[in-house]
Amino acid sequence: MSQIIKGIAASDGIGIAKAYLLIDPDLSFEKKTIDDPAAEYERVEKAFSASIADLATIKQNAKDRLSDEELEVFDAHIAILSDPEMKSQIKDEIESQHVSAEEAMTDVTTNFANVLAAMTDNKYMQERAADVKDVAKRALSHLLGKQLPDIASISEPVVIIAKEITPSDTSQMDAKFVKGLATDLGGRTSHAAIMARTLRIPAVVGAEDVTSTIKNGDMVIVDGLHGDIIVDPSQAQIDEYQAKADSFEKERAEWAKLVDAPSVSKDGQHFEIAANIGTPDDVADAVKQGADGVGLFRSEFLYMSSDHLPTEDEQFEAYKKAVVGMQGKPVVVRTLDIGGDKPLNYLPLPEEMNPFLGYRAIRICLHRSDIFKTQLRALIRASEFGPVEIMFPMIATLAELRQAKAIYQECKDELQKDHPGLGDNVKIGMMIEVPLAALYADQLAKEVDFFSIGTNDLIQYCFAADRGNDAVSYLYQPLNPAFLRLIKHVIDSAHANNTKAAMCGEMAGDQLAMPLLLGMGLDEYSMSASSILRTRSMMKDLDTKECAKWASDAINLCYTADEVEKMVKTRLGLD
Amino acid sequence: MSQIIKGIAASDGIGIAKAYLLIDPDLSFEKKTIDDPAAEYERVEKAFSASIADLATIKQNAKDRLSDEELEVFDAHIAILSDPEMKSQIKDEIESQHVSAEEAMTDVTTNFANVLAAMTDNKYMQERAADVKDVAKRALSHLLGKQLPDIASISEPVVIIAKEITPSDTSQMDAKFVKGLATDLGGRTSHAAIMARTLRIPAVVGAEDVTSTIKNGDMVIVDGLHGDIIVDPSQAQIDEYQAKADSFEKERAEWAKLVDAPSVSKDGQHFEIAANIGTPDDVADAVKQGADGVGLFRSEFLYMSSDHLPTEDEQFEAYKKAVVGMQGKPVVVRTLDIGGDKPLNYLPLPEEMNPFLGYRAIRICLHRSDIFKTQLRALIRASEFGPVEIMFPMIATLAELRQAKAIYQECKDELQKDHPGLGDNVKIGMMIEVPLAALYADQLAKEVDFFSIGTNDLIQYCFAADRGNDAVSYLYQPLNPAFLRLIKHVIDSAHANNTKAAMCGEMAGDQLAMPLLLGMGLDEYSMSASSILRTRSMMKDLDTKECAKWASDAINLCYTADEVEKMVKTRLGLD
Repeated sequence: MSQIIKGIAASDGIGIAKAYLLIDPDLSFEKKTIDDPAAEYERVEKAFSASIADLATIKQNAKDRLSDEELEVFDAHIAILSDPEMKSQIKDEIESQHVSAEEAMTDVTTNFANVLAAMTDNKYMQERAADVKDVAKRALSHLLGKQLPDIASISEPVVIIAKEITPSDTSQMDAKFVKGLATDLGGRTSHAAIMARTLRIPAVVGAEDVTSTIKNGDMVIVDGLHGDIIVDPSQAQIDEYQAKADSFEKERAEWAKLVDAPSVSKDGQHFEIAANIGTPDDVADAVKQGADGVGLFRSEFLYMSSDHLPTEDEQFEAYKKAVVGMQGKPVVVRTLDIGGDKPLNYLPLPEEMNPFLGYRAIRICLHRSDIFKTQLRALIRASEFGPVEIMFPMIATLAELRQAKAIYQECKDELQKDHPGLGDNVKIGMMIEVPLAALYADQLAKEVDFFSIGTNDLIQYCFAADRGNDAVSYLYQPLNPAFLRLIKHVIDSAHANNTKAAMCGEMAGDQLAMPLLLGMGLDEYSMSASSILRTRSMMKDLDTKECAKWASDAINLCYTADEVEKMVKTRLGLD
Repeated sequence: MSQIIKGIAASDGIGIAKAYLLIDPDLSFEKKTIDDPAAEYERVEKAFSASIADLATIKQNAKDRLSDEELEVFDAHIAILSDPEMKSQIKDEIESQHVSAEEAMTDVTTNFANVLAAMTDNKYMQERAADVKDVAKRALSHLLGKQLPDIASISEPVVIIAKEITPSDTSQMDAKFVKGLATDLGGRTSHAAIMARTLRIPAVVGAEDVTSTIKNGDMVIVDGLHGDIIVDPSQAQIDEYQAKADSFEKERAEWAKLVDAPSVSKDGQHFEIAANIGTPDDVADAVKQGADGVGLFRSEFLYMSSDHLPTEDEQFEAYKKAVVGMQGKPVVVRTLDIGGDKPLNYLPLPEEMNPFLGYRAIRICLHRSDIFKTQLRALIRASEFGPVEIMFPMIATLAELRQAKAIYQECKDELQKDHPGLGDNVKIGMMIEVPLAALYADQLAKEVDFFSIGTNDLIQYCFAADRGNDAVSYLYQPLNPAFLRLIKHVIDSAHANNTKAAMCGEMAGDQLAMPLLLGMGLDEYSMSASSILRTRSMMKDLDTKECAKWASDAINLCYTADEVEKMVKTRLGLD
């Protein structure tokens, strides 16, 4: 009998394959005295050989996907398993104390790891402690006859079932084999959801029961269009969903034809659909997906991937690369947006009770104008190579905006001493993500060239609900009438002052929200590159005047998010 | 030479006295070998005797202030210091190992504490571990000839200087001797500030340098009216401030005459000034200060001070006591407002990354309707004894409000089966503290009898700035024009629907904000009881029409909080 589990549709498409459970097996064991030490040590040798074979396979499978440096980790692990000193200690312990292979191996490797971890003046050796633990876990699983899940070793089509997906999991995921994802936890803006959309893997998240219901090898259908997971489907169901999957793929092929088309509504209004990117390397995909520009370049990668504050030149090179890559289309760079929850070794920040309400982003930059000026100078310099737009995150008040602009002006004045006119074409904008800024958009609009509404944060602050917290995920309500009214206020305020209104949050690519945004006249829709063509396709079937009526009805005739959702679905013919 | 340190004015009044530094001294010591074990042990005996004498004095001084149960702690500490087993172990260690008294005492007491802490099945003994550590710290301070600060032992006038003040500090504070408070950290809504106002101790908080600048015994003036701390003042300064203090006390005496007066503006408009209370025992002070009602009864104390979910009858008794105590004046009870940052042993809540944006208050109650219904039933029953109003905290959406009201209706229906009419006079209201609720006040107002604006939370969410975090305290801006506009929207929405508009946050008692709120027509001002008479006195000098002009100018002619502050100060003649 098939069973349907409901979750949150997080990445479009339909995947059908056998379940692969990404859950660590129970690796506990009971201590016991053994009679035959030689045979017992033989078990260790076998477990180590099997582990080495695992690692060689994983490395082989990952060869095309990982860098040489990343691949070296596997060799390091194999080297640990071949260490004669460690093996001889395990052998000694089994012989002298008659303990089991499990116990001796665990004792000795734990000891090795502790010795390494204690080398506080040698960071390299300290990090090897984690490798030893990793390897020991693998060997232990072989000793206990249990299989360790291993994304990198997957070499046949599967649907991955997990509690949640970590960044290290996704780095190993190969879309060729991973046909779908289903997780217990997470919402539409969780890491798993965002990565699934980037990798174009159909996904359903926040489906509480999947890991407890589904077993390894169960046949599973993941319907990322509707948020359904069908466990153990009948042949008829498989056929039905295969047909749906085919038609979705056909639709996707249609979208692909729009890569060079303008972003235009049915009634001929022009808009922009842009890409959110994380590094200059992402520009290639943005171009490939037909982005009208980069609507959000998160500059954090420069800081997170470095062991020092990135210099002006390092930053300049990165921005220049992105700007050149976009071939004349605008690149909006958000200035440093970090806080206590994203620690940088070289820039210690206080630990905070509520990091999302803390010392972060522009608040740090206004206080540490040295860091801020380095970035602003690099951005102004990059503007020589193409259209650069600078966007300040987390502005709450007009006073903060004016302070940020004054620092920007200082940088420009300094640079223009040697390069007259440099930066004169740079546009200055701000994120609308703090409720107070949204409320005051009518005044703020007078002092910037553009707004970009960051809906993920704006929603979490308006509803006072952490978007990473499942217990309050029901309050992620982009379609709430009161929230839509606020968005309209921001867009109207922008237009009344000749300011461009963009959006770079999750909502911009949401198929139910987009028609309403179009109806409100939002100018630019920035989203993950993978959603651009679908959105452009949707847009060409929508009439802005009709959408304006929908938006007005959503705000004036509906009272809850559910009512708006129902209305939009009906009008889109989706129910 | 005198020196002025600037901070945040946190509690009215002027205090002049010698500084008492509430900072733990350095209790580190170097290990050494001693020659004369008998003499060394004698030092331990002396330190223990001195510690016992300390504790006896502290207990004596605290007798009037603490309950018998609280006083027993001192006896327990004295008993530890008299334990022959512990002393003999210390003696043995000194004699056998020739270590110092400091080392032997620390070793043995640490060992005792660890043994107690390890008794995981005996909570009582586990808690004694903390007592042993406490006592050892005191004895060690005597051995090292250093003085441990001790609020309870203060028996002469002092100004307390501290990094910050904890709840346990304030529980020991005697306003008879503590003439002022100055802290490095904290803002107007910090614990120290709120307690200082309750205890009527002049206070300046957030004055970064006080603990590093001021030494024990320095003469200090704390000007809680202006946020100034004068260190080592001249006699002329002392005289000047003494005169100011006297005139403030005279003013306070004038206020006292208003205890039975109505809360009325210069032009004869009637308002209500109510008290925020934490327990039914606080009702006495509210009545003494002439409160027109209780505008906020925080029901958490029932849950925080209990080792089980308080039963319906326990709650009923508490609410009844408060209602009866208010002698016919209304009591607004806020339903359970807890979250992951206020853990209850018997109700485990998930640890959260951002507890202020988490699973808390009404979000828990809607999910755990069993807990919610117990409280609602107790409240409905208490309404037989006087006017009870029920207020839901943290409502974000209309859907949540309707759900809460449906649960309330269920309780009422159940109770009315046996008691027809019970609860029919109960008014239902909600906090406006989540930005989305403030935005949607025009619709929410149709479905409640009253709003109460919780400004502390509303400000922290609107500005996305944790009010407990000093690094972003500059964003606590009740006078920000955009924020004032939102407040006006809430009040106007209430009045358009015949709904009462109250405020129970810090802002209601703020002397610069109050005239603007009066100008917007806010109906009820709820604050700490100690501020009621001052506010009533201010109110009788204010003209509502003039204030309406100020409010409109603040919203329409000012662009930053600083501009509003300056304007109000000028018009009040305060600059």
